[in-house]
This record gives sequence, C-alpha cells and structure tokens, in this order.
Amino acid sequence: MGGLHAGHSALIRRARDAGNFVVVSVFVNPTQFGPGEDYLRYPRDLAADAECARRDGCDLIFAPSVAEMYPPGDYVRVEPGPLADRLCGPFRPGHFAGVCTIVGKLFNIVRPDAAYFGAKDYQQAEIVRALIADLNIPIRLVICPTVREHDGLACSTRNAGLSPAQRRQAPALFAALCVGRDLILSGERSAGRLVAAMRRVIDDAGPCRIDYMAVADPETLTDVAVVSGPVLLAAAIRLGSPESGVTRLIDSLLVDPPLG
Amino acid sequence: MGGLHAGHSALIRRARDAGNFVVVSVFVNPTQFGPGEDYLRYPRDLAADAECARRDGCDLIFAPSVAEMYPPGDYVRVEPGPLADRLCGPFRPGHFAGVCTIVGKLFNIVRPDAAYFGAKDYQQAEIVRALIADLNIPIRLVICPTVREHDGLACSTRNAGLSPAQRRQAPALFAALCVGRDLILSGERSAGRLVAAMRRVIDDAGPCRIDYMAVADPETLTDVAVVSGPVLLAAAIRLGSPESGVTRLIDSLLVDPPLG
Repeated sequence: MGGLHAGHSALIRRARDAGNFVVVSVFVNPTQFGPGEDYLRYPRDLAADAECARRDGCDLIFAPSVAEMYPPGDYVRVEPGPLADRLCGPFRPGHFAGVCTIVGKLFNIVRPDAAYFGAKDYQQAEIVRALIADLNIPIRLVICPTVREHDGLACSTRNAGLSPAQRRQAPALFAALCVGRDLILSGERSAGRLVAAMRRVIDDAGPCRIDYMAVADPETLTDVAVVSGPVLLAAAIRLGSPESGVTRLIDSLLVDPPLG
Repeated sequence: MGGLHAGHSALIRRARDAGNFVVVSVFVNPTQFGPGEDYLRYPRDLAADAECARRDGCDLIFAPSVAEMYPPGDYVRVEPGPLADRLCGPFRPGHFAGVCTIVGKLFNIVRPDAAYFGAKDYQQAEIVRALIADLNIPIRLVICPTVREHDGLACSTRNAGLSPAQRRQAPALFAALCVGRDLILSGERSAGRLVAAMRRVIDDAGPCRIDYMAVADPETLTDVAVVSGPVLLAAAIRLGSPESGVTRLIDSLLVDPPLG
C-alpha cells in the first residue's frame, strides 16, 4: 500500500537477496478500508516509495490506479472464511475480503514465484496463507519478521500519523505483549490473567481504546483459555479521537512456552 | 463434472483443433450442489469419461478426489457478485459461489492458456467471464455453442435421469424458447407477452414446475420489460417429483432482433 518504511525495505532486500526479480506493488486498496477509516488520509507518495524501493533492490514497481484495479462492473470478491472473523475481523468488517480480493488480483497480474509479507500483520499473513492454499495458487509465501523502531514500536505506515505525545505512548503496545510473553515464560498459563496484565500496561501508558487484547491459537486465531502450547499474543489499539484523527495500531508476538 | 456427452465432445475437439494440449477436469463439485439437489445421484463413470475424452483428443484428465480439492480447513471462497443473483441464482443459493471457487482452484492447478465452456450454461459462462476479468486471471475464455439432440433438447448430463415420458416432454423447453424467438422476430416487444407465450408451450407439454422463464439483458441478466436490443431468453424447469427424483433442465437462447 505504499508508505514504504524499514519493514518494507526488509521484505524487498530479502526478496532481492534470494536472487529474485523483485516487483513491488504500490496500491492503496479502497476495498480493505471501512467507512470512517483512514483511506483518504493514508500516505501516498509514489516518487518517494519508488526511490526507497529502488535503493533496496526493487526491479519493477506496479502502481495501478483504482479504476484499473476496480473497473465499473467489477463484482467478484474473494471471501477468506472464519480466519477473518477473529482478532481484527469484527472491528474491520469486510477488510480481509478486500485484502484477499486485491492480493488475488495482484497475484494474477504479477504472477510471482514467491510473495513476501510481514509478520506484523499476522492475521493478514495467515489469511494470505489460506488464500494460497485453498485456491491452489502456485506461489511460495515468505513471512518476514516484524521490523521495530528502537523503542519496540512495530514499523507501520500509520506511525506517521501519530502526534509526538502519541508516538511516546505507542511503544506501550509492544511492551504489553512483552509483559505477556515474560509472564508465560515465567509459568503463567491463564489467558485471563495474561490479558489483564497486558491491558494494564496499555492503560497505564495513557488514554487509548483497546480494540482487543488476545491470547490466541496461532493457526485458528481463536481465543485460548489456558496456555498449553504455542500462542499468539495480539492486540489492536486506537490513539486519538475522531475529531483529531484516529490512528489504529496492531502488533503481535508468537510465544512458544517450554512445557512439561 | 464428468458425465461426458456430445456437448463436452465439441468443447474438447474445439480445443484440440486449435492446436492445444487439452486437459479435461472431471470432478463432481460438492460445493455447487445445494441440500436436496442431485449431488449423490449425479452420474460418475470415470472410465467411460476418459475413453470418451481420449477419442475426442484430450491429452490429460485431471480427476481429483473431493478430499484433494477441499481438504480439512479449506474455507476461502470466491463470490461472484450480482450476476449470481439472477436466473438460476435464487433457486440454487450458493451454487455459483461453488462454481467460482472450484473454477478458480482448477485454473490455478491446470494453468490453462484458454478455457472452453458451453453456451448452454449461459449464466455460468457469464460468471466465469466475470471471474476471469475481475480477478485478472490470464486465461482466454472460449464459449462454444450449445449442442442439441435431434429434437432440440440441449445435451446435458442430467438428461440421463429422464424417464422415457419425461424425455418426450423435455424438448418443450427449447421449443418454448424458439416460440419466444420467433415472436420477437415477428415484432413482439413485450416481455410479459413473450413469457406468457413461452410458459404456455411448457405447460401444454405436460406436468412440470417452471423455476423461471425470463427475457433478460444478456450482460446483466436482469429482466427486461420491453425488448429494445439483444435479449437472452432463458428458462429452468423441473420434471419429476421428490419421491421419484427431480431432474432440473435449463436452456437459453440469445436473440438479436432487427430494430428500427
């Protein structure tokens, strides 16, 4: 979606280092934004993105117009199924169908051998994995680790929308996940207590709305009550107000506790 | 879906005559059948289909199992949009989503340069056309004319389910469409009168349920009230009873009236 940052750079360099001809799609996809979301405010600077991508080793930028991707009479949609009902799903109705549809289109246009996605958008990556598996798309999916700022905040195009005060508050999201991880590694197994502890970290950092704070099965994304194997700690928060503009941040952390 | 007949033979020969390596998929797709439909009774004879396809010039048969095409945890579906709400759509909820999903899967597995579909299933062909266009699938769609028996009945795997008496009654479906066509060519422009005349042909032929009898726009498949350009005459009827088994037949005819 453009707004290239260090996370995108890592994807591009990883694809380049594997010896690929690297194509970067730059397209702010309207069908994955809901009413009242930040579609119109989403950063768009194709020249800067192209320069950034070129430096990282991108060979070709595909930056179509909305009319090219969604001409009049375009109706076919790809529906992701129950993975889209978890975590971000209820807060962004239609979002993942929009993601699946545009990714399906881009896959058919670009026809890549491999596709590189970031682990930060864990649910998106799992849904793209399901898209590829279920529709038998002959593309290898490569999930790359989340790239973070020095204070732990996951790199995101949306970080640019944070005020200085919000930017100071935002690392609480990752800090909360780290608290959850450390509790699990110290033996905590109750998802309820984990969520409470993680929520406290967010709440203590300042005013913000927590969309969800989850201890989830890494494959089905459903909530777990008791940690008995690998879990995904995942959260989404909103900073700001409808008047001044809301920035929604997500983050997640896979935790594989030593059991036995 | 197997049950190969003269219509399938025409598709295979047309693909072969164009110099292609010809792949025939044989798969009775469960997701395009509704509850109470004829999924379990649908003809399955892979050996006969393979021999028929081979004679017509097929190079490879792809006949996967249901478990291969829909493994556990398979949820992604391709939704066709409003074209699926017309004609057969209301009578077969989910049918065209099942068609789009399996065709999308088969396209990704086989990766053909061109795909050959029959005109008899006009709505299906238009929905596959939309699937290809909207998801930017790099496949050329070739629609081949309906092949008919000597008495006009469109070739269909389901014709094998007709009793001798139903088989004698079934040509009324095409006869009705021909009456509609002839009326249009004689100057009739009222869809209401056309439908009434066509229904009468069906009703006069014997007991049967008419799912729909339509004068539709050939592109949007919506009903037209007054014929003012090319129209699709389309109908679906059901012969038999739930006790003895229902056979559903569809047919259609494109009519391009001389106007002015």
